[in-house]
Amino acid sequence: VTQSEDTQVAAANQRFYAAFESLDVGRMEALWLRERYVCCVHPGWPPLFGWGAVMQSWQQIFANTLEMRFRLTDVQIRIAGDIAWAVLTENIESRSAHGWSTGLIQATNIYERHDADWLIVHHHGSPVVHPADDAPGQLQ
Amino acid sequence: VTQSEDTQVAAANQRFYAAFESLDVGRMEALWLRERYVCCVHPGWPPLFGWGAVMQSWQQIFANTLEMRFRLTDVQIRIAGDIAWAVLTENIESRSAHGWSTGLIQATNIYERHDADWLIVHHHGSPVVHPADDAPGQLQ
Repeated sequence: VTQSEDTQVAAANQRFYAAFESLDVGRMEALWLRERYVCCVHPGWPPLFGWGAVMQSWQQIFANTLEMRFRLTDVQIRIAGDIAWAVLTENIESRSAHGWSTGLIQATNIYERHDADWLIVHHHGSPVVHPADDAPGQLQ
Repeated sequence: VTQSEDTQVAAANQRFYAAFESLDVGRMEALWLRERYVCCVHPGWPPLFGWGAVMQSWQQIFANTLEMRFRLTDVQIRIAGDIAWAVLTENIESRSAHGWSTGLIQATNIYERHDADWLIVHHHGSPVVHPADDAPGQLQ
């Protein structure tokens, strides 16, 4: 793993969240590998497989969102060959027709290198429950 | 990707759930790569990093669980070089001091090949909300 690879993957990860904030499906489309095995798990949703289904979900989310801002914390990136994954916490402020809301989402993003590009192939986001809301040692 | 690699990764993934069902920390310990970057996100928990912290969480969960049964559905496995990831739904029946409960957890498991072994380096599990409980198009 070279410094340059780390920088490339960090940049790909930043582009993903910049596309998310842009609410522009075209920008999001360009970042995903066009394969049937790509998968997206939005918080609480069942998994979506395949580029088409995943893009449809972004359309749906973007259509219901007026504004979206991310602050990423605890970002850890690993690279092994042509695969990289980022583990991070999304600190979200979003605005819909119902007003502003905030959320804390734990994400796993997997990227594949194709030529010079690191394209996203897997996004799994899930709500982080505040410790006070949850009993330690409980699975759910 | 050879048939044999697919089989190896599927077997590693099965071993992970067999260790989970066994509630035996020693069996779980043997399956994880001993590195500081391994990460485990239990449903609703903040992410745990490092082999030690992850193993402590299994101890805690196993100590609070009397029985645990998994049925895995919609399993998709991808292999690229020495990295593989499994996306699947865990259909769980578990028994604690409070009795039996069932759950549906969406999981992303990442494995790294070390010598002949595929060791788990990342587990991210999160509750699947039944569609009726959640409005489509909503992020959270």
